[in-house]
Amino acid sequence: MPPEPSKAAARSVFSWPVRVYYEDTDAGGIVYHANYLRFFERARTEWLRSLGGPSHSELAQARGEFFVVRDMRIEYLKPARLDDMLSIELAIVGGRRASATLRQWARRQDGDEILADAEVRIAMIRRSDSRPVGLPDWLTQSIQPGTTR
Amino acid sequence: MPPEPSKAAARSVFSWPVRVYYEDTDAGGIVYHANYLRFFERARTEWLRSLGGPSHSELAQARGEFFVVRDMRIEYLKPARLDDMLSIELAIVGGRRASATLRQWARRQDGDEILADAEVRIAMIRRSDSRPVGLPDWLTQSIQPGTTR
Amino acid sequence: MPPEPSKAAARSVFSWPVRVYYEDTDAGGIVYHANYLRFFERARTEWLRSLGGPSHSELAQARGEFFVVRDMRIEYLKPARLDDMLSIELAIVGGRRASATLRQWARRQDGDEILADAEVRIAMIRRSDSRPVGLPDWLTQSIQPGTTR
Amino acid sequence: MPPEPSKAAARSVFSWPVRVYYEDTDAGGIVYHANYLRFFERARTEWLRSLGGPSHSELAQARGEFFVVRDMRIEYLKPARLDDMLSIELAIVGGRRASATLRQWARRQDGDEILADAEVRIAMIRRSDSRPVGLPDWLTQSIQPGTTR
Repeated sequence: MPPEPSKAAARSVFSWPVRVYYEDTDAGGIVYHANYLRFFERARTEWLRSLGGPSHSELAQARGEFFVVRDMRIEYLKPARLDDMLSIELAIVGGRRASATLRQWARRQDGDEILADAEVRIAMIRRSDSRPVGLPDWLTQSIQPGTTR
Repeated sequence: MPPEPSKAAARSVFSWPVRVYYEDTDAGGIVYHANYLRFFERARTEWLRSLGGPSHSELAQARGEFFVVRDMRIEYLKPARLDDMLSIELAIVGGRRASATLRQWARRQDGDEILADAEVRIAMIRRSDSRPVGLPDWLTQSIQPGTTR
Repeated sequence: MPPEPSKAAARSVFSWPVRVYYEDTDAGGIVYHANYLRFFERARTEWLRSLGGPSHSELAQARGEFFVVRDMRIEYLKPARLDDMLSIELAIVGGRRASATLRQWARRQDGDEILADAEVRIAMIRRSDSRPVGLPDWLTQSIQPGTTR
Repeated sequence: MPPEPSKAAARSVFSWPVRVYYEDTDAGGIVYHANYLRFFERARTEWLRSLGGPSHSELAQARGEFFVVRDMRIEYLKPARLDDMLSIELAIVGGRRASATLRQWARRQDGDEILADAEVRIAMIRRSDSRPVGLPDWLTQSIQPGTTR
């Protein structure tokens, strides 16, 4: 069975443009499947930046902590191709003290069709021992129900 | 909720060694999460090769067809690090005319602990119009229940 | 001996912003050396787009032709790091019928220090047989001496 | 002018096999040019391992030092393609206290034709301040003229 991200009614709270370059494609003429994870991570990074918290490098230097993906499911629906201008969308599915779940999907900027659709759970770990630490307050406050969707 | 690949009793039918190089790591000091998808794809390619069918490039040239990932769920359990010698394992979960589902996971060669655990559904499409075509016989025969596990 | 791109007096004719994400870094905490080639290729693509010629995918579909790098020399001077906002600069060194030579370098947007400095020769080949074809007129006209620098 | 690695009479002192997977190719149907740098780095890593010194991660943990590429020139001669089985060759050009220069090239395992040909200068830096430190003795001893070629 394919994964079924809750497609209904997800409203994007953040979107980020991504141009498809040669580096992103493969010999099939389409975007290599692993590269959507790079696109999603760029959009998550810019979304976190938009929330006003410290940057990844500030988190790493000040506290020895960084974000990781805990798990993900992704459905590849239609191929993206060289030169496509994509919009990488992000919606908040839910959050707890230890992790936040996001829906992230790709579409062409000039179309509504979803090309790849993912649900991603992120957490924060301490570099020294790879142990989970709680999400920072500035993030958990941003993902409260009612605040962001 | 994290995805829960059926962890019990999966017996690997194929494994492929992967050394972790600088290219695979990120500034967190660990393997970048998208790169497990590259490792899994290497192992799938070598598994398909081991079944004796045509290579990816022969399929592309002779029939204009190539394999794609339809959907995937992946759980990141423990980080892999620079210089780690990984074993990428593959087990057949099930198959139909149009797609095959594989479980693929990463562990260190000298340990049993699972670092990343995925379920991947692959299909075959025609390059000209990106339409699905059936899996080739040599593959569907290899993934019959009872044959391979 | 290190390569010595002609550093004096090169005036950028195009620049393209690139943010450094986790995907670009390695376990040394810096941008992985091969990834500057991805950054340079993004900037070249956008520069070609700015000249008004057909896109890479239009060239490929209409004429079965695409750009390749013939040779490159690159000097790594200072590391770029996670979250850095880079400016990828491009200047035209020279061009002939069959190839064009560009200088491309990376600096931080908020600094003049050059982090990586390259000289890149690009050409165009035909997909069917990998044979070189001449550069298109819209490009050779753009790289005439006196026109662009 | 293209770079001209000293092609005559270079005798490989180390070679490493690399299979070309989808991840390595681009929409031109060939190996993406930046990926040869990944292949060369894999071969350098395995060559260093073969010399019996500490691994990259041991160097990083014990001494906070790691190898970097100082500069490189590379000539792309013929394209490699999906499924190709490459041999990445390495020869020592010269070495000093602070850096070593290697020639590295790619050919198909079943052919002598050189696909990509590079000269790479590597050095070692300290992570804390990115300052160069001398190459370790086990390496400089390995690259003495007369010893290795």
